[in-house]
Amino acid sequence: MTTKSFDVVGIGNAIVDVLVQADDAFLDNHNLTKGTMALVDEGQAERLYASAGPGLETSGGSAANTLAGIAQLGGRAGFIGRVRDDQLGAIFAHDIRAVGARYETPAASSGASTARCLILVTPDAQRTMCTYLGASVGLDPADLDLEMVAQAQVLYLEGYLWDSDEAKQAFIAAADVARSHGGKVALSLSDAFCVERHRESFQALVDGHVDVLFANEMEITALYKSNSFEEALEQVRGRCAIAALTRSEQGSTVLSGDQTFTIPPYSLGPLVDTTGAGDLYAAGFLFGLTRGEDLERCGQLGSLCAGAVVTQLGPRPQCSLPDLLAQHLG
Amino acid sequence: MTTKSFDVVGIGNAIVDVLVQADDAFLDNHNLTKGTMALVDEGQAERLYASAGPGLETSGGSAANTLAGIAQLGGRAGFIGRVRDDQLGAIFAHDIRAVGARYETPAASSGASTARCLILVTPDAQRTMCTYLGASVGLDPADLDLEMVAQAQVLYLEGYLWDSDEAKQAFIAAADVARSHGGKVALSLSDAFCVERHRESFQALVDGHVDVLFANEMEITALYKSNSFEEALEQVRGRCAIAALTRSEQGSTVLSGDQTFTIPPYSLGPLVDTTGAGDLYAAGFLFGLTRGEDLERCGQLGSLCAGAVVTQLGPRPQCSLPDLLAQHLG
Repeated sequence: MTTKSFDVVGIGNAIVDVLVQADDAFLDNHNLTKGTMALVDEGQAERLYASAGPGLETSGGSAANTLAGIAQLGGRAGFIGRVRDDQLGAIFAHDIRAVGARYETPAASSGASTARCLILVTPDAQRTMCTYLGASVGLDPADLDLEMVAQAQVLYLEGYLWDSDEAKQAFIAAADVARSHGGKVALSLSDAFCVERHRESFQALVDGHVDVLFANEMEITALYKSNSFEEALEQVRGRCAIAALTRSEQGSTVLSGDQTFTIPPYSLGPLVDTTGAGDLYAAGFLFGLTRGEDLERCGQLGSLCAGAVVTQLGPRPQCSLPDLLAQHLG
Repeated sequence: MTTKSFDVVGIGNAIVDVLVQADDAFLDNHNLTKGTMALVDEGQAERLYASAGPGLETSGGSAANTLAGIAQLGGRAGFIGRVRDDQLGAIFAHDIRAVGARYETPAASSGASTARCLILVTPDAQRTMCTYLGASVGLDPADLDLEMVAQAQVLYLEGYLWDSDEAKQAFIAAADVARSHGGKVALSLSDAFCVERHRESFQALVDGHVDVLFANEMEITALYKSNSFEEALEQVRGRCAIAALTRSEQGSTVLSGDQTFTIPPYSLGPLVDTTGAGDLYAAGFLFGLTRGEDLERCGQLGSLCAGAVVTQLGPRPQCSLPDLLAQHLG
């Protein structure tokens, strides 16, 4: 596997985040469920934004955050996702390239504007997201750089792609290419509501096409309609080679065959904003995996990266991840 | 004065900031002088941005930050400045309205894009700025809402406006309107290089048209080519009703007639980014002044707001300024 040009190549929605502080009343007034991601159309996005407080704009997107994290860690990272040729699209492209990831998906020259996600951060540091998918849903197989996919040790995909038929088809085509070239396929379930929308499709995928599954407690219990996290663990066990299941302040559990690793969380300072926690967990985990680390160490790397991103506003660590690793994992 | 509709109306460049962490070598490689503001054209701005790290976008602009701060404090604030009808322009307009300031300057429908400022934040928390003025230099007297200017207790202007002939003319017209309606005129000298470019013009302005002058140590010594801060104090004394002179970690000095008030700084946490410190000092000071507070209290309000903004990344406080005041100044 070491002859591949990329450690991880990701496919996902190319999104610019708008981070806004909000209180619980704002969520209630707009019928938003705390901690989830809701899809909105352009009109809804504009109305929500108009009623929200001042924002901070920064590149986001679940898989894009993961790939940016892998690049920040020193991994060879590539990202595929579609923006429009507008100012937010230029910001997205700049930021992911600036951390050293390869990003070459052509920007659309017409149609919907670059995707944006209004992220409402409440005083309890939870984030509630409203996403206008814009140009990102137009990703189709023609946009795929299959050369890059074939050169990936791991192809990483976000479940959010299932919300667009074109993107879903693009992903399945890419997964076939990756596997036929000896690569592994990793999937993040993304969001519990997203799992509700695509449960059967995700279940079939996990059984047949996924080597590494990432999910949080809500997502994995939604996938199997489990009554508890423990029940979900046994339902997913053996269905894919590795399942890495995150539980916020309770750390994570990594399953592989009949092995179970319980990984404690890292607390690196006051909790500010949980945006990107799952994405950075996947970054640390996959960085370890592609370097041949054992699964416990992969989980620790994930925990540490997630622990760093939740102490700041925004989904991509502003600190040096290599310094952080050197300090905590020597 | 209490019959006016606005406490403070500001005129300035309408800018979106791009905050990027950088090291001293980056500044050296690009011939940038730490702590200053350099004007760049669109091509230079693109090249600098392409070579810089990932960014965080947020509304900025010196006077705009001040007016946003006054609105956050609960003051009646208005802002005049020109954006283009593009995505960054929409962000600027949203953010200043979201804190309660009135902002009605029509967005340009053609010509240069919205102004942006690449702010390089070094590990010592200093900020070095490269500004592409874009659409903001097109501000002309026709864009002025003279009704709003006439209704201002204080008209606040940034020295940066002098870098554009149209904007300068717009300002002078506005100052005449404000004064003829019984308002005061406040000016920030903005930047030492800006003072070098417009020294004679600024000197004449301070002597004849300015009631409240804001400057930091570098700017006031540049204005009078003084050999020391103490010498500059005596050179500016008596030339305008009030001079509020800031000195970073040494606090500030407020002069009025033969009175001198020395105001200590507030240290509210580790220094993260000095962007907006002067702008927020002016916000606190003018908020106090328009509420009839004595000059020492005005200086304390300025120090406290500046102390808050330097503990975070970005030029507009993300904390609640009214809570901060209640906590520290009762």
